Amino acid sequence: MNRIEIYDTTLRDGTQSEDVNLSAEDKLRITQRLDDLGVTYIEGGWPASNPTDRRYFEEIGNYTLKHARVSAFGSTHNARTTPENDPNIQSLLDARTNVLTIFGKTWDIHVRDALRVPLERNLELIHNSLAYLRDEVAKLFFDAEHFFDGYKANPEYALACLHQAHEAGVDALVLCDTNGGSLPQEIAEIMAVVQKELPQASLGIHAHNDSELAVANSLQAVQSGATHVQGTINGYGERCGNANLCSIIPNLELKQGHKCLPENHLPKLTQTALYISEVANVQAFHRQPFVGRSAFAHKGGIHVSAVRRNPRTYEHIEPETVGNKQRILLSDLAGQSNILFKAKQYGYHLDKNDPFVLELLSQIKERESNGYEYSAAEASFELLLNRTLGRARKYFTLLGFRVTDEKRQENKDPYSEATVMVQVGGVTEHTAAAGEGPVNALDNAMRKALEKFYPTLTEMHLLDFKVRVLPPQRTSDGKEGTASNVRVLIESGDSQSRWITVGVSYNIIEASWQALEDAINYKLFKNDQLKIEQAMAQARTET
Amino acid sequence: MNRIEIYDTTLRDGTQSEDVNLSAEDKLRITQRLDDLGVTYIEGGWPASNPTDRRYFEEIGNYTLKHARVSAFGSTHNARTTPENDPNIQSLLDARTNVLTIFGKTWDIHVRDALRVPLERNLELIHNSLAYLRDEVAKLFFDAEHFFDGYKANPEYALACLHQAHEAGVDALVLCDTNGGSLPQEIAEIMAVVQKELPQASLGIHAHNDSELAVANSLQAVQSGATHVQGTINGYGERCGNANLCSIIPNLELKQGHKCLPENHLPKLTQTALYISEVANVQAFHRQPFVGRSAFAHKGGIHVSAVRRNPRTYEHIEPETVGNKQRILLSDLAGQSNILFKAKQYGYHLDKNDPFVLELLSQIKERESNGYEYSAAEASFELLLNRTLGRARKYFTLLGFRVTDEKRQENKDPYSEATVMVQVGGVTEHTAAAGEGPVNALDNAMRKALEKFYPTLTEMHLLDFKVRVLPPQRTSDGKEGTASNVRVLIESGDSQSRWITVGVSYNIIEASWQALEDAINYKLFKNDQLKIEQAMAQARTET
Repeated sequence: MNRIEIYDTTLRDGTQSEDVNLSAEDKLRITQRLDDLGVTYIEGGWPASNPTDRRYFEEIGNYTLKHARVSAFGSTHNARTTPENDPNIQSLLDARTNVLTIFGKTWDIHVRDALRVPLERNLELIHNSLAYLRDEVAKLFFDAEHFFDGYKANPEYALACLHQAHEAGVDALVLCDTNGGSLPQEIAEIMAVVQKELPQASLGIHAHNDSELAVANSLQAVQSGATHVQGTINGYGERCGNANLCSIIPNLELKQGHKCLPENHLPKLTQTALYISEVANVQAFHRQPFVGRSAFAHKGGIHVSAVRRNPRTYEHIEPETVGNKQRILLSDLAGQSNILFKAKQYGYHLDKNDPFVLELLSQIKERESNGYEYSAAEASFELLLNRTLGRARKYFTLLGFRVTDEKRQENKDPYSEATVMVQVGGVTEHTAAAGEGPVNALDNAMRKALEKFYPTLTEMHLLDFKVRVLPPQRTSDGKEGTASNVRVLIESGDSQSRWITVGVSYNIIEASWQALEDAINYKLFKNDQLKIEQAMAQARTET
Repeated sequence: MNRIEIYDTTLRDGTQSEDVNLSAEDKLRITQRLDDLGVTYIEGGWPASNPTDRRYFEEIGNYTLKHARVSAFGSTHNARTTPENDPNIQSLLDARTNVLTIFGKTWDIHVRDALRVPLERNLELIHNSLAYLRDEVAKLFFDAEHFFDGYKANPEYALACLHQAHEAGVDALVLCDTNGGSLPQEIAEIMAVVQKELPQASLGIHAHNDSELAVANSLQAVQSGATHVQGTINGYGERCGNANLCSIIPNLELKQGHKCLPENHLPKLTQTALYISEVANVQAFHRQPFVGRSAFAHKGGIHVSAVRRNPRTYEHIEPETVGNKQRILLSDLAGQSNILFKAKQYGYHLDKNDPFVLELLSQIKERESNGYEYSAAEASFELLLNRTLGRARKYFTLLGFRVTDEKRQENKDPYSEATVMVQVGGVTEHTAAAGEGPVNALDNAMRKALEKFYPTLTEMHLLDFKVRVLPPQRTSDGKEGTASNVRVLIESGDSQSRWITVGVSYNIIEASWQALEDAINYKLFKNDQLKIEQAMAQARTET
């Protein structure tokens, strides 16, 4: 078993991702979260490159971290000056991080085309920059930019660059596959040469995912002796992203017996990944390995029945080891076993030939053929299940609604208004409300009508709203264009949980209404369930 | 150089993905597109498992494919009967595909826990099923489900399963890493044993991405002698997905000199991937290697300037080889050249520093920051361009509209009605129309009002309607859920052409209105252009 240094560069290389833009405050929050996860190093940014990073380094000194050490990133000194007089090098010292990472060119075409200095001069830049900084900080790393491409083009020169850095006394030579074009066997072959050349040096890897091989290349590097792995959370990064630490860490710890995080910290991984995608305001990729929403989701009918008997049959690890959990999806592929599983969660032990199961199954299949998507809307399914079980009561009856969008000037937004008439018990409520768009107006009018009967609805909020126009050919009667079916998914939440409901119609207002209605019913149903459980707990304590 | 059989299972294993649900029509369209790309085999589905797949196999016989052969998928015969009497096996023959793939258990715990038969009996199921089908089809493949996990648990048994299939005369033994938990070196070690055991057998690989290693494992398998690779477009599939053919194919062809597709077909890859994500109605993953929108997008300032001098400095391959293209982010150049190019099409030769260009550019940037997407809506862009050039005339003025959706019974659809007031020349028109949903009603009322002035509008039809809820902007004022911005894309067409227009608002009715308005204006503008060209042609012939 080996200790592997995890060097996170989400805050620096990760922000090169097209859709990732972080403020200094975002970076401070993410730093604390990464420290809590327990990575070894957190690359905070490049102080010379922008004001955000400068502000970050001014602030971060005021935080005490439990596990990680923050590092600053910069390039070798400018060829026209010396380290002492290079503002970029000085800004690194001003960052006062005590850990620094310097990147330098190791690919001859870059020295010529990008840096535009003689090859010899670049060797000096590497050596002088690192030698100057060596005694200023506790840890000093050298990122050998484009090392693998450089080696393929001019091995002697690429290795000469490493020698310069090694002689300057860096703590690790980090070999970068900057363009993400290398294959695992190339990593293995080239690293074998490097180890022969520099047997004393400790090596690191910095991989990019342009060939969808960044994780494999990082694991190969560790196999070839690397003890320092650079990457980002969720694989954020320029182009196709950096090596994904959310996959590298569990692979190293669970499958190869290495240690990357403090004892028992691995279960924090999924929440950390989600938190960072929230702060970065990037939609989480549901198929992401280990930490994704679908990573342990089972849809196929056979799989579901097998997984219920023995999870290992279709899961390579226990979801809980990385803080994730198993999900059973519904779909016309899935069949009875899914329904049995869900029913069981509500305390119903049903047989797969139970007429109730068969009825519910045919209902679901028919609705899914009309575009309802229960695998994405579990709350709507649970309502359907509990209604068919005669368990969910009817909380209100809609007598009618009217939604109006009125535009009275070419460049002004329309005015949206909704009226709703509902009946609760014997009482009829007739309300009206405006809103930002028709669905919002309808939602506002609904709440106005129902909150006096069900005050807990004030706890509930709409979190997300998704619309899909279903491919026209799905609607049998050849409707086209604006008349094809629309599926609306609404995600709602309160302080305890989040739930997704679905509606389908050729009319987007009707589809939205169905999803809103389910969302409200689910909230009220959930409250009743809670009351029942509390009452039962009460009863148990009394007896 | 080796020929590698590409076996696409997007239509079968791909639909196990949480968000992928395909109708029979979708599957037929995707089949034609995969054939055009030139994969070797297309696994159409599992005829016994659901009506969609049955319908697909009824239809697909009527299509002639240029490159690919369609295969049907199913399991070994039921233990309680014989192949002759097993409806699942018979449904495979009914599919009449001439290529069949049978999967069987090779992991002892699955035989016990999932199949629930003695290990010996499973060996018979494999042999009998394949021997029975061998002479019925031209190509017969065996998917050795869970082979790698099975081998790790009980090597003798896993190999015994392969022997049964081999003796039955299958064309390839496809080794499956069903749970996606294996590492490349395990693939290498285990495949070395298999090749020693079965030197005559041709081998295939079927990998899943649960460890983010599916591409690496597939490449390793080819290195270890596999000549048949199974996977899906965009890596769709259960949990974390299947091995991604969009990465495997270019890696094999561009980096390892294998042949997977017909000569010069690789540039079709990006469009194929996009088309299939459209039909599957799944948002394309922008960081996806090779074919993703960001795969060759450069954001970092240094990178951008270097890439302009020499693309190879930050690109592992030429984007065009896979039909993708370089994108420079945070840079006016892309936008400018696009404007110059379009203006030229309308006979305007502009300089990139022309104040008109700069003004239009800032207009576009501002609108794109609000969610307008002109790369997807060329017609709206051309209108904007020609308006700024003072060339597109104003065909009508909207004085106002009102759209009403009224529901008067809980289980009845709402009634949608729209009124529109427009002015054309001095004349005011005030019309009303019903429709299937609010947008359709608005469209109907608009046409009613305008067709008497512009009869050619009767030639025009709405072909497609797309809605996307945009992620709340970081700069937003805290609007959430139903109040976040909505982008509507409308595709319209007449006998000559098709055009796409865009609208954006927090109000879906307003966004739809904007797209409808552009669609109608573009049609009228197009007619005027045509008249001008005809008049000029006329003039030329007369002189």
